[in-house]
Amino acid sequence: MEYDYMIDNGLLLPMTDDLPIIEKGAVLVRNGAIEAVGQSKEFENADVKVKINAENKIIMPGLVNCHTHMPMSMFRGLADDLPLDVWLNEHIYPAEAQHINPESVEKWSLHSCKEMLLSGTTSCCDGYFHEENVAKAVVDSGIRAVVGQGVIDFPAPGVPNPKQNVDFAIDFVKCFQKGFPRLFPSIFCHSPYTCSKKTLIAAKKAANELDVLFQIHVAETQNEVNMIRELGKKSIVQYLDDIGVLDRNTLMVHSIWVDDEDLRIIQKTGAAIAHCPESNMKLASGIAPVPKMMEKGIPVGLGTDGCASNNDHDLMAEMDTAAKLHKIALLDPCVMDARTTLKMATIEGAKAIGLSKITGTIEKGKRADVILVDLDKPHVTPMYDPYSTLVYSAKASDVSFVMVDGSILVQNGVLTCV
Amino acid sequence: MEYDYMIDNGLLLPMTDDLPIIEKGAVLVRNGAIEAVGQSKEFENADVKVKINAENKIIMPGLVNCHTHMPMSMFRGLADDLPLDVWLNEHIYPAEAQHINPESVEKWSLHSCKEMLLSGTTSCCDGYFHEENVAKAVVDSGIRAVVGQGVIDFPAPGVPNPKQNVDFAIDFVKCFQKGFPRLFPSIFCHSPYTCSKKTLIAAKKAANELDVLFQIHVAETQNEVNMIRELGKKSIVQYLDDIGVLDRNTLMVHSIWVDDEDLRIIQKTGAAIAHCPESNMKLASGIAPVPKMMEKGIPVGLGTDGCASNNDHDLMAEMDTAAKLHKIALLDPCVMDARTTLKMATIEGAKAIGLSKITGTIEKGKRADVILVDLDKPHVTPMYDPYSTLVYSAKASDVSFVMVDGSILVQNGVLTCV
Repeated sequence: MEYDYMIDNGLLLPMTDDLPIIEKGAVLVRNGAIEAVGQSKEFENADVKVKINAENKIIMPGLVNCHTHMPMSMFRGLADDLPLDVWLNEHIYPAEAQHINPESVEKWSLHSCKEMLLSGTTSCCDGYFHEENVAKAVVDSGIRAVVGQGVIDFPAPGVPNPKQNVDFAIDFVKCFQKGFPRLFPSIFCHSPYTCSKKTLIAAKKAANELDVLFQIHVAETQNEVNMIRELGKKSIVQYLDDIGVLDRNTLMVHSIWVDDEDLRIIQKTGAAIAHCPESNMKLASGIAPVPKMMEKGIPVGLGTDGCASNNDHDLMAEMDTAAKLHKIALLDPCVMDARTTLKMATIEGAKAIGLSKITGTIEKGKRADVILVDLDKPHVTPMYDPYSTLVYSAKASDVSFVMVDGSILVQNGVLTCV
Repeated sequence: MEYDYMIDNGLLLPMTDDLPIIEKGAVLVRNGAIEAVGQSKEFENADVKVKINAENKIIMPGLVNCHTHMPMSMFRGLADDLPLDVWLNEHIYPAEAQHINPESVEKWSLHSCKEMLLSGTTSCCDGYFHEENVAKAVVDSGIRAVVGQGVIDFPAPGVPNPKQNVDFAIDFVKCFQKGFPRLFPSIFCHSPYTCSKKTLIAAKKAANELDVLFQIHVAETQNEVNMIRELGKKSIVQYLDDIGVLDRNTLMVHSIWVDDEDLRIIQKTGAAIAHCPESNMKLASGIAPVPKMMEKGIPVGLGTDGCASNNDHDLMAEMDTAAKLHKIALLDPCVMDARTTLKMATIEGAKAIGLSKITGTIEKGKRADVILVDLDKPHVTPMYDPYSTLVYSAKASDVSFVMVDGSILVQNGVLTCV
């Protein structure tokens, strides 16, 4: 039977638990799915339409960005190096009020999709307003994405009446739940300090009924606990658990200011974490206890956050930062080793956003989300260990080829489709 | 009078204290020196051999890497995510014993020069053994470099008898002090825990007599204080000051575990710091109090350290990390703003290694060390503030053009000379 593509002769990192690295590996793709994985020589006589030679390149699953606000690329570098309240109240909120509209959201979401594809990201998880326009950009770009319509108890872009915020999100999900194979609608409650208990409960109930991911910023700043009226003596995590918001379909973004008891609750509920180290560093929010989370088996994915706070969508650089940040935070060079970090940016991220059956590894049956990383530049030479090379040396610019769902979107480092 | 080059129509960042950003700026170069800086329209009728159009690019001084061990690129990624003693004793030292020789030092130093040039570094400050072979690579590559012959009280590559270590370094300096315009020989004492008081004093005396930079690793690890026999109740910095090792021609590398009294001493002596945040994070050494150092007017330059501990020579990424690391360490998003960070990677670095009369800014009279950074990729768009774009968004791969000492070494992102 004929295959559409064979990517072969590359150093293949499947990123599964059981499949080892294959020195001269091949991936065969048909109808957008991975049909076979193995050594190149096994497939010498395969009937293939298009062969892609990955010699001197790493073949690996596309990266998974677990937290974005795609339209915010329009505010990249607008205001930096400022206290959080000045940054938000004097710069970001006024800029959003003035510049956020359906057209700008679509334009800059497409821009962000391009940036992500060029740097090897094949799936992302977004949350914002006018999310139907983000969805349009996702469909046009060819990327795979969870797209979360924002819910907040204030007038918001596209949702002037906050009383309709949950209903609006429900309509959004219903609109995109069928007919868009790379699109996964979701509900994104901004935070426990901007959404009332009632809103949180209603939004989570709707997400569960619709069987979609529920996203929420949690414990990003130390001060957040003072901002939540309903909290009493509880921690934020305890509060969210008590009102039934945490379960396997919940993605807790940031989760920096959490203690051991909070981690126990998160573990028990099965909720996942989106870890955004560069954003957390730049805003001086704090350092999430990621090694502890992973020890407990909590799924942790890597995210860039929006471009107003990072200021890019570069998961190659984010991996490097994540690996180094936790070493210095714990004064332990052994934590967050390169393979663990690369898993966080691939299969663990896919788990965190509910897409691990579809993407995050190179194995038969998954969709063909595959990238090639070039090994010909001085900064990636020599190579003793490919995980180390990818996390500590390789750059976004080394990603030369990107396939999402079996379609080639980047070739020779250039976008082919957008 | 005719100019050799005019680089024009770019967004010009001189990185001086008094020259503002010029929107459509031009730099004119003759005989390897910057002869004029201004608005492009001022030079419309200039007599120029070669024009370089910098439209949609930033024109800025080349980056200055204040701490490298160039030959160690041969060990890039050899051993990561390990405790410091295991990393050194079981991996790096044995690998050095086996693989360091004049040929390998020259080969991998040239490799490092290429990597640095491709990522926008035009000057660096190196320290290692067989440094005459590092010097050869520097001359061949076209980069500008301070090259420090290593001094250590153990048998070392090229210096089997440690009793000759200082004399060997003196001979090295004398050999390269004349006739190599881009080369600045130096003496590099490995550290106060591997060099005796006698060695330190003799090496510093020689450096001062020869009028060259004296480099030394200082207070990289918390444990270091226990390793220095001569210390008594003094801090390492007090000890080094007492034996006369600290002055304006001393570069103190790392200087992590220093307290306020140590900073007062460093300030008083005029010594400078080479800050290597990524290496310090990856080895979990600690976080140098850089914002405090800068408050005191201590010159602090940025360095990558060797590729066994970073694992690259990418100052564009190092700037991003430096800016974010100190924000999170102090939980203050205002420290290490983008312009301060960019200065650290250019003119402050040049000051730290004694080259600020020659390089580090774009101004009349300096040597022509100029780079262009492209602004056409999605990840650097939009641009509200060029300092922010350079530090938080731009990548090594955006450096498309590199001129050192008036010679073009990188064009369209490709090495032209090596």
